[in-house]
Amino acid sequence: MPRYRLTVEYAGTGYVGWQRQDDAESVQGTIEAAFKRFCGEDVAVHGSGRTDAGVHALGQVAHVDVDRDWPTYKVRDAVNAHLQSMGARIAILDASVVAPDFDARFSALRRHYLYRIITRWTPLVLERERAWWVKRPLDAAAMHEAAQRLVGHHDFSTFRSTSCQSRSPVKTLDRLDVSVCGHDGAIEIRASARSFLHNQIRSFAGTLKMVGDGKWTPDDVAVALEARDRKRCGPVAPPQGLYFLSVDY
Amino acid sequence: MPRYRLTVEYAGTGYVGWQRQDDAESVQGTIEAAFKRFCGEDVAVHGSGRTDAGVHALGQVAHVDVDRDWPTYKVRDAVNAHLQSMGARIAILDASVVAPDFDARFSALRRHYLYRIITRWTPLVLERERAWWVKRPLDAAAMHEAAQRLVGHHDFSTFRSTSCQSRSPVKTLDRLDVSVCGHDGAIEIRASARSFLHNQIRSFAGTLKMVGDGKWTPDDVAVALEARDRKRCGPVAPPQGLYFLSVDY
Repeated sequence: MPRYRLTVEYAGTGYVGWQRQDDAESVQGTIEAAFKRFCGEDVAVHGSGRTDAGVHALGQVAHVDVDRDWPTYKVRDAVNAHLQSMGARIAILDASVVAPDFDARFSALRRHYLYRIITRWTPLVLERERAWWVKRPLDAAAMHEAAQRLVGHHDFSTFRSTSCQSRSPVKTLDRLDVSVCGHDGAIEIRASARSFLHNQIRSFAGTLKMVGDGKWTPDDVAVALEARDRKRCGPVAPPQGLYFLSVDY
Repeated sequence: MPRYRLTVEYAGTGYVGWQRQDDAESVQGTIEAAFKRFCGEDVAVHGSGRTDAGVHALGQVAHVDVDRDWPTYKVRDAVNAHLQSMGARIAILDASVVAPDFDARFSALRRHYLYRIITRWTPLVLERERAWWVKRPLDAAAMHEAAQRLVGHHDFSTFRSTSCQSRSPVKTLDRLDVSVCGHDGAIEIRASARSFLHNQIRSFAGTLKMVGDGKWTPDDVAVALEARDRKRCGPVAPPQGLYFLSVDY
């Protein structure tokens, strides 16, 4: 029984999120349904991490065990054909055979995310479900400075959803960079860590936005972190700006 | 009665195109409905050019006469608010007062369009309604060379839809550049002319794609142009890759 590693792109819009749910369309459940059509098996697709409703992925990674030994191109192309015919906004970018002890979640060494903010006065149209719309300009340099107060090994209780199931709020944040994209002027927040708490990046984004429009200083962000108190977090940024980019193994 | 010039962004997906139609959702009709909600008037919004179903605009220009003299920011913001509440994928990027003889269509000196092609083996997801998906790599340099055979003053009958209502197939094409976008690797075709025939850019894109995958040479494109025969055109590229960028006046 071979184990396949899948690299998955999806548009989060219209899905309840990654995780399978009864009576609701999830990314995980949709991929499992496409495998069922492909090979007739009831497989379990295990993702490297969950994403919330509306959150996108350019490189989510998952593993799946299938009874029969298919060529990897066949797994990719056949599952994509079924996803297309189902009208899914999901594609398998790559499939490869991995060792039976590879686990998309537990073997992950580092995860990379992007959060996009577009600042303009008029409502977003082409980017509506692809970025956070902020009406007034933001100071990206101040946001980057504040972000550096969050990098490192910390108790991130302030930036953790109350529904977070992680055993510990202590994590090591390797990177949190804020820059202006030369291509379209969007503000891009890039975050990397071995693992993240639930809503951690959207909590960072909402808090850094407070710095970007001058309501908070970088020091305020450091104080909020040290408080280890959810109530000290800025508003949680909306899901459509968040992209799960890739996973290192 | 002031005349306003509007700069309009829209996602063409789900609309029957720019032009107002009975019993179908058009961009023009939707903007007119938003004006009705804003000022109670039955206005006519005149675009600089029509776009087909699925074609996007980043900077369509239109003019509209309104009885009352509103501040331009009020026109922009109020119409946008109504468009948003109607769930429209349309935004007024700018409104300004223009002279009564300004005509979005007839005053236009030059129109600029972009056509985007993304080449990859797996189906598009985030870009599905935003680009033409081509599975195999294309030779952008050969496409650019072929495009130069089309630039200039020609009878473009080969590249004209049979339903085109233009009086003459003779037009001057100022620019047709093909390049690879450094940002995302998409192939971008940029076209500029005073005016275009119906389906002209999509006919160019489909024909240049034949060159890109080696089925046609640049000389074949010149021969097709000289034939002035619709049957010599390559396949017409799909609408979702086309963007109406801007108009010069």
